Amino acid sequence: MRPSGRQTDEMRAVRLTKNFTKHAEGSVLVEFGDTKVICTATIEEKIPPFLKGQGQGWVTAEYGMLPRSTGTRMRREASAGKQGGRTVEIQRLIGRSLRAGVDLAKLGERSITIDCDVIQADGGTRTASITGGFAAMALALDTLIKDGTLTENPLIQNVASVSVGVYQGTPVLDLDYAEDSTAETDMNLVMTEDGRFIEVQGTAEAEPYSLEEMNAMLTLGAKGIKELIQKQKAMLAE
Amino acid sequence: MRPSGRQTDEMRAVRLTKNFTKHAEGSVLVEFGDTKVICTATIEEKIPPFLKGQGQGWVTAEYGMLPRSTGTRMRREASAGKQGGRTVEIQRLIGRSLRAGVDLAKLGERSITIDCDVIQADGGTRTASITGGFAAMALALDTLIKDGTLTENPLIQNVASVSVGVYQGTPVLDLDYAEDSTAETDMNLVMTEDGRFIEVQGTAEAEPYSLEEMNAMLTLGAKGIKELIQKQKAMLAE
Amino acid sequence: MRPSGRQTDEMRAVRLTKNFTKHAEGSVLVEFGDTKVICTATIEEKIPPFLKGQGQGWVTAEYGMLPRSTGTRMRREASAGKQGGRTVEIQRLIGRSLRAGVDLAKLGERSITIDCDVIQADGGTRTASITGGFAAMALALDTLIKDGTLTENPLIQNVASVSVGVYQGTPVLDLDYAEDSTAETDMNLVMTEDGRFIEVQGTAEAEPYSLEEMNAMLTLGAKGIKELIQKQKAMLAE
Amino acid sequence: MRPSGRQTDEMRAVRLTKNFTKHAEGSVLVEFGDTKVICTATIEEKIPPFLKGQGQGWVTAEYGMLPRSTGTRMRREASAGKQGGRTVEIQRLIGRSLRAGVDLAKLGERSITIDCDVIQADGGTRTASITGGFAAMALALDTLIKDGTLTENPLIQNVASVSVGVYQGTPVLDLDYAEDSTAETDMNLVMTEDGRFIEVQGTAEAEPYSLEEMNAMLTLGAKGIKELIQKQKAMLAE
Amino acid sequence: MRPSGRQTDEMRAVRLTKNFTKHAEGSVLVEFGDTKVICTATIEEKIPPFLKGQGQGWVTAEYGMLPRSTGTRMRREASAGKQGGRTVEIQRLIGRSLRAGVDLAKLGERSITIDCDVIQADGGTRTASITGGFAAMALALDTLIKDGTLTENPLIQNVASVSVGVYQGTPVLDLDYAEDSTAETDMNLVMTEDGRFIEVQGTAEAEPYSLEEMNAMLTLGAKGIKELIQKQKAMLAE
Amino acid sequence: MRPSGRQTDEMRAVRLTKNFTKHAEGSVLVEFGDTKVICTATIEEKIPPFLKGQGQGWVTAEYGMLPRSTGTRMRREASAGKQGGRTVEIQRLIGRSLRAGVDLAKLGERSITIDCDVIQADGGTRTASITGGFAAMALALDTLIKDGTLTENPLIQNVASVSVGVYQGTPVLDLDYAEDSTAETDMNLVMTEDGRFIEVQGTAEAEPYSLEEMNAMLTLGAKGIKELIQKQKAMLAE
Repeated sequence: MRPSGRQTDEMRAVRLTKNFTKHAEGSVLVEFGDTKVICTATIEEKIPPFLKGQGQGWVTAEYGMLPRSTGTRMRREASAGKQGGRTVEIQRLIGRSLRAGVDLAKLGERSITIDCDVIQADGGTRTASITGGFAAMALALDTLIKDGTLTENPLIQNVASVSVGVYQGTPVLDLDYAEDSTAETDMNLVMTEDGRFIEVQGTAEAEPYSLEEMNAMLTLGAKGIKELIQKQKAMLAE
Repeated sequence: MRPSGRQTDEMRAVRLTKNFTKHAEGSVLVEFGDTKVICTATIEEKIPPFLKGQGQGWVTAEYGMLPRSTGTRMRREASAGKQGGRTVEIQRLIGRSLRAGVDLAKLGERSITIDCDVIQADGGTRTASITGGFAAMALALDTLIKDGTLTENPLIQNVASVSVGVYQGTPVLDLDYAEDSTAETDMNLVMTEDGRFIEVQGTAEAEPYSLEEMNAMLTLGAKGIKELIQKQKAMLAE
Repeated sequence: MRPSGRQTDEMRAVRLTKNFTKHAEGSVLVEFGDTKVICTATIEEKIPPFLKGQGQGWVTAEYGMLPRSTGTRMRREASAGKQGGRTVEIQRLIGRSLRAGVDLAKLGERSITIDCDVIQADGGTRTASITGGFAAMALALDTLIKDGTLTENPLIQNVASVSVGVYQGTPVLDLDYAEDSTAETDMNLVMTEDGRFIEVQGTAEAEPYSLEEMNAMLTLGAKGIKELIQKQKAMLAE
Repeated sequence: MRPSGRQTDEMRAVRLTKNFTKHAEGSVLVEFGDTKVICTATIEEKIPPFLKGQGQGWVTAEYGMLPRSTGTRMRREASAGKQGGRTVEIQRLIGRSLRAGVDLAKLGERSITIDCDVIQADGGTRTASITGGFAAMALALDTLIKDGTLTENPLIQNVASVSVGVYQGTPVLDLDYAEDSTAETDMNLVMTEDGRFIEVQGTAEAEPYSLEEMNAMLTLGAKGIKELIQKQKAMLAE
Repeated sequence: MRPSGRQTDEMRAVRLTKNFTKHAEGSVLVEFGDTKVICTATIEEKIPPFLKGQGQGWVTAEYGMLPRSTGTRMRREASAGKQGGRTVEIQRLIGRSLRAGVDLAKLGERSITIDCDVIQADGGTRTASITGGFAAMALALDTLIKDGTLTENPLIQNVASVSVGVYQGTPVLDLDYAEDSTAETDMNLVMTEDGRFIEVQGTAEAEPYSLEEMNAMLTLGAKGIKELIQKQKAMLAE
Repeated sequence: MRPSGRQTDEMRAVRLTKNFTKHAEGSVLVEFGDTKVICTATIEEKIPPFLKGQGQGWVTAEYGMLPRSTGTRMRREASAGKQGGRTVEIQRLIGRSLRAGVDLAKLGERSITIDCDVIQADGGTRTASITGGFAAMALALDTLIKDGTLTENPLIQNVASVSVGVYQGTPVLDLDYAEDSTAETDMNLVMTEDGRFIEVQGTAEAEPYSLEEMNAMLTLGAKGIKELIQKQKAMLAE
């Protein structure tokens, strides 16, 4: 039995709140149960130096956690003087994942920065960030189309992310903190609407996992991704 | 006329939302109009080295802004590798202000860390942080009393903060961003329930201000502080 | 009685030594009693990026203390790898204060950097820095006028700074370290020759202060500022 | 056709040189074709603070590249003042992977640090580092057994790593730089001798990959891992 | 002819001012012509970790330049966030040099920190720092003897430092900035009262130097050192 | 007797391996006995800002040690966040020394970066770095001549470096770690083929050294330099 009483293939309540803050070109509060992340998308008419003159844009991401988004207070990274290894790893993952959903040539010579700030954590902050970050990016791109800057939407297809794992010997979908902190295996999937993979990151925390377990996790994940993309579409259609 | 149409002595709508996030000992979302700050209070059973063996506690504060809490994206301080001068100045002000509301000897050898994270900025983030930070601290101290750790409440009296200024030649209360960015003088007041001063920080941005202008600002400020302390009490009584 | 035996409205011996070092465009050793600060003004034909193309100049300040300017050795900030919060706060205050004395449009597209380095500290280093920094800036501007770079002096009026406070229940002028370290309230005033305020920063270290105490402090401060501006004028006339 | 002329399931020439340097407890030069990494294992009788009193040890890793291990010179991270995101990501992966091969309780309260320094890069530096790092760790553990510090070998089973990918539409094993820099998908596998997974990290660089492609890559990877573990065993048996 | 009109073996006017500032255990203003350095010695009853339990003390040094000690303003190292290579090199040299003048076992388990802060630079700041730093250290040790902490003076013999060089083909003593910036060779000597060497650091800036030139420089240096040690002794005897 | 059994004027076995790695314009593995350093030379068509428009090039160096190049593991500087003082000192020495061997005007507006990375240390890493770094630079310059970028070789003459010292009262040549760590005096010499000096850095670690000892060391050093330059020439002629 899962601590939350959920079925093995049951996601937590997922909620995407449109325009949660007012300044960003796109802004979404994403909730996977008690995990809450503010995702904003900023569009700037500049590109990183390594892309100069290539006629294409860029998508990048930054990730942070409020010091008291967690059960015990974490040191503020701005005060520590650098972003920790986990932060760096996560924001690189978010950036790669969202770039896969955008045709950078169609975006033109501009950049989108996705900021994902966790205000409350309960497991799955990186998958929530990718799912909500995609939604914020889509909102921001809408503004470019509405104001005539872009004539064609550079989005290729929806991208979402969910975690799967092996918890007490059983493959489960969308781990919360109680499961994540003791699971044997934790795998984050980033997938597209057509069921293909952008990222698979599976880590055996305790015991290596077999090919059979991996296949079971991939099946659970595909189900979760489908539900998340429906949520994204519903929010964008509001 | 003020850009918002407010009277010279009229504050913005102020809202304090109790227990906005779940992990902290005290958590408040404070809103001064469109300025929104998450304030959390963390209690830890440790004190900074310079207080060792003195039988008293400590209160400190940290302040941050989400990168897109503002009209144009600000660089994340964790990524820049250090907190900027403005951040340092503000968090020192919050810490000093809140320490003035607590009897540190009654607090005992433990520390309270107030984190103030701006999720949307529209002027007055430091005064909102002090006002909401006090409320979060009060909630956290309640938990220590309820669980029997403390028998006496170390709070001395309520502390709140508001800005006043001279805008187009007229003293006004609680400046929003449209006023703050062009005001001749900007003054932040931190005051106690009995009408005395903890901090007065008045800066002439353009033109030095006279004693008469200062007195007019102090009168406006006292009115605002009274209203804010009523809001704090109402929230704590919920 | 004050530890130094001074009257409540009596300043320490103040001395401004012109051209204390030889390389800077303006250089002053300022002494408020045993507090000694080297202030230099550097003029550079460049402006910070945010002012590009606005036809105006800039004034900024940096502040430091020699490691053994104090009773116990302080860690060198260059070795610690960053400027502490107190340093940042002070140098921002000095910069704002001195900018208020200069017509930045008349200065033209050049910048003045005021370096204030404390070689011996005994309370009031920031007020001595502002008072001496203004004098160094005035000397540097003289060189621009003498060499014909400027035809009109961009100085608006003299700016000086002094501390006041409540020490053992009594308002006093120009606190030395013995007073400052135990005063109930410490207030730094930056004022212009015509008696108006540029900055008021009053902090209750122990007990909040009343409006009556504030008014008494402002009166003392105005007296001290007048004396300091006379010293500045005498030095500049040498 | 692969640029190197290799078969799709053919690894580059792999060489493990025992005791490449003299000071470390374990030292191996690992070569995957033109990729050359010095792996050293250091044993220290101390553990990180978070493990104090739990009666177990720790394995961690650090990774670096010589500035001119690559075609164009990379800035030295020690001079840049911090480890880049890619470095952080890789050394966390190496550490997690090698910990999975060791029974930390049997290791006792001591730590093993694996340093992987790339002296020449041609793709696959992280998989070479894990494969060579395991071998260095095994050599270091041998010294603890030989000198009687440990009576039982804490190694659980061999761990090795190889990359697979989709290059010009075809799944291939062990990508070199020419392939890696243009492949559609790049996947790093860390596996155990019994064919289970410790880490799967697959990234679609250009085009999302299907479940069929993933399965083909896993099959290639399992073949490569088997060959690498034979090389490890041969070197340890020398 | 030298720019200053000095003879080839003639030092600049050297002055050592005792107790230049009041807080340090030893404090000296050292002047080599227009080069002016404040040297302070701080005694602390603690030693660095690597000396724990060895029954001996330590001497270390830090060096800094005020931003406007030079003809054009240098960036403040505290603001740059680190000490530059030249600073690090110089303070290591000062530390090594002064340790050679002290019997660290007789000093006991305490440390002396020499701070050398250049307030005006005109060439030879490192040699002035060593010469003045030794004098400050001697003053500080006197306080330990006077208050009975030490019964025996740990000083072995006087240490001083001077530069020599080849300027326009001629060996000269004590280079000022005008010479130093164009000299073919610059050599810093640290010597003891009995004429032996602690440090010789000779650098060919333009043209390698011959053995004959080196010998001529060493002879000049020995003369300068003798004069400097007389100045030290005179100041200490005041 | 020396720990290694060598004669007082006998160098360790010296080996220079040409083209040790494949990417750099010049690459050499230099061995002085058990001290092994990878030296690479990188040519870039850019110069540092302070040389802009002067029609000359630049040579600079960076130095590092692998964490386990030494008997106990050293902390990785990239992880510590900065290069230590010893590293900074050494890489400045290498840069100065190699610049002395090159006519920077003939080099033209391009820069050479010498990276010296110690993979195994046994004393004398800086002298090996200079000796091997010169050889790598010469190889890199050859490529510029062969491809017609340069028509004239900017090398002036060979530069090499060796250490000398006083070990147990006797001057010796080329100290290994066993000698270096206990020697009374350690002196590094950088000399040209014609027997002149580029750098002399002699430090009395324990006891000041006399003029006689210095002369004896210089004689030993000249002998070692001659042998090293022969090795350089032999390698370049291969």
